[in-house]
Amino acid sequence: MPYPEEAEGFQVDSPDTYTNFNRRFFKLKPFGDYDVDIKIEACGVCGSDLHTISGGWGDQKFPLCVGHEIIGRAIRVGPKVTLIQEGQRVGVGAQSYSCGECKQCKNDNETYCPVLMMDTYGSEWPETGIVSQGGYSSHVRTHEHWVFPIPEQLETNLVAPMLCAGLTAYSPLVRNGAGPGKKVGIVGLGGIGHFGIMFAKALADGYIATAEEGWEKDHLCSFDLIINCASSSQGFDLAKYLSLMDVHGRWISVGLPEEDGQVIKAQNLIANGVLIGASHLGSRREMLDMLKLAADKGLRGWVEELQIGEEGLKEAMVRMKKGDVHYRFTMTGYDKVFA
Amino acid sequence: MPYPEEAEGFQVDSPDTYTNFNRRFFKLKPFGDYDVDIKIEACGVCGSDLHTISGGWGDQKFPLCVGHEIIGRAIRVGPKVTLIQEGQRVGVGAQSYSCGECKQCKNDNETYCPVLMMDTYGSEWPETGIVSQGGYSSHVRTHEHWVFPIPEQLETNLVAPMLCAGLTAYSPLVRNGAGPGKKVGIVGLGGIGHFGIMFAKALADGYIATAEEGWEKDHLCSFDLIINCASSSQGFDLAKYLSLMDVHGRWISVGLPEEDGQVIKAQNLIANGVLIGASHLGSRREMLDMLKLAADKGLRGWVEELQIGEEGLKEAMVRMKKGDVHYRFTMTGYDKVFA
Repeated sequence: MPYPEEAEGFQVDSPDTYTNFNRRFFKLKPFGDYDVDIKIEACGVCGSDLHTISGGWGDQKFPLCVGHEIIGRAIRVGPKVTLIQEGQRVGVGAQSYSCGECKQCKNDNETYCPVLMMDTYGSEWPETGIVSQGGYSSHVRTHEHWVFPIPEQLETNLVAPMLCAGLTAYSPLVRNGAGPGKKVGIVGLGGIGHFGIMFAKALADGYIATAEEGWEKDHLCSFDLIINCASSSQGFDLAKYLSLMDVHGRWISVGLPEEDGQVIKAQNLIANGVLIGASHLGSRREMLDMLKLAADKGLRGWVEELQIGEEGLKEAMVRMKKGDVHYRFTMTGYDKVFA
Repeated sequence: MPYPEEAEGFQVDSPDTYTNFNRRFFKLKPFGDYDVDIKIEACGVCGSDLHTISGGWGDQKFPLCVGHEIIGRAIRVGPKVTLIQEGQRVGVGAQSYSCGECKQCKNDNETYCPVLMMDTYGSEWPETGIVSQGGYSSHVRTHEHWVFPIPEQLETNLVAPMLCAGLTAYSPLVRNGAGPGKKVGIVGLGGIGHFGIMFAKALADGYIATAEEGWEKDHLCSFDLIINCASSSQGFDLAKYLSLMDVHGRWISVGLPEEDGQVIKAQNLIANGVLIGASHLGSRREMLDMLKLAADKGLRGWVEELQIGEEGLKEAMVRMKKGDVHYRFTMTGYDKVFA
């Protein structure tokens, strides 16, 4: 059989055993006319992976192979594929399908499609019973719209985390007007936040990282935009942050903390008419723009590499849980594990 | 003495006795070069008055005369006043001063001034010990920036509620792009909301009032803007309303409910990337634009008149507390009470 109908990867079986990765074969979705088969070469380790397998985001479809910052090689393209060529180095991010027909999909808002939202892992393909499996595996099979050519200037191991964390930071920056003359802040300096600073600096005149004691006093009522990348809301003094916003400034959250949320009244927002929002990934167009910006400006993730496998994945999750990562792990060495 | 240094009005002494209005004289602020003395002819009854005197918004400076939808006659103008002429019919709204010098004041954001915010009632004038008193009284003394000429087409009793409720609805509509082709919703059909519908209809192609059972099903993910005018958040299903918003649509609250607020997580906002905000009154420029729009299009409040006095004010508060008003009271008959 020339092409794989199965992939081999590392699955978790339950939140109680989320650091135990089990090497298994699993079925890929049926190959469609617009699909691309990708042999994986690297995959970033996203906070979502940990939230998902440890149960922090609620019920999931186990057993599950996570990982959605995928870089690999297109080894087969469907007969109607025009966006990707066989042999090309490509990436896949956190989303792998949407309806493609609705108003949102037609307006570069496919990550907000209300009709059909397929995550790269953990979503069931309609009428197949097959649950999508992620990039801690040998192969993924993905519709061409969700497969992105990688500019040659970008190194596989360093660009991988851009496919989710990078785009998650980039999209709200460009959608909310980060650019010359704007004062942009990044809260939460993890995987997403470090890209946020990188892209804010590449897009806007300046940026400020909110780490020093008493820093807020000089910045009251002055920020046009803050991207909140914090992955936890414990002890988070939202009112203090909102006091930094200029009139009608925007506080956009991209992290999805596991905690209960925060009590918000109109009274909290009225002093400066601030807008609170959230952002979900980014469009294909934004992904391509971001990769081009990164290639043009020499931007790359700050990455620590770990060998893909039971041990490496366990280490990644244990250390990420402790916050012991600056600022992103990329699982590499796929060729040593998958023949 | 040709000009009053005192005004006579109806004050409340405590939240426990908020339906008892006591007729008294009280001192006006010292007359400044830019001040205008106004003999009051009518005053709308705003939800803020009730929230304030009944203690729902916390501690206030009692004794207090409320009322901030004021129409009257300019009977004296300071030597540097250029915006108002003696004898002119004018209005005063909920705010009566700001610093005038900061970035916000210079950018038509004076209602968001972080330096000095003087409400028409209940704020202490710096270095005087004098607490501002509202429009259930014979006179107010107000800086010209906060005094608005009333177009002759607009009837005193019907335009009065526009000075706060009208502007509160108008400003977030124009600041958030209500106009041809936009789908605008108004939630909470009270004093502010009925102006919201009026102005939304005057500005945009259409509007939808959210009162009928099951109405949301036809409108999922479709609104560009909803102005939330609800004065209470009890039993309020925010998630249902947010599901109506188009991607990056805006949910703007102008009511300030007394309840604790609602728990919001980024997860609630991410499906459509909706922005949640609040809006505070509106600028002088917006006030003038609104009055012109009302004059040009023949818009006016739906008003029930009540005679100013102890009885009339008590009736206004008791009935407003029960929601028994469609859609605004205006206190009138000032000439019968104040010589």
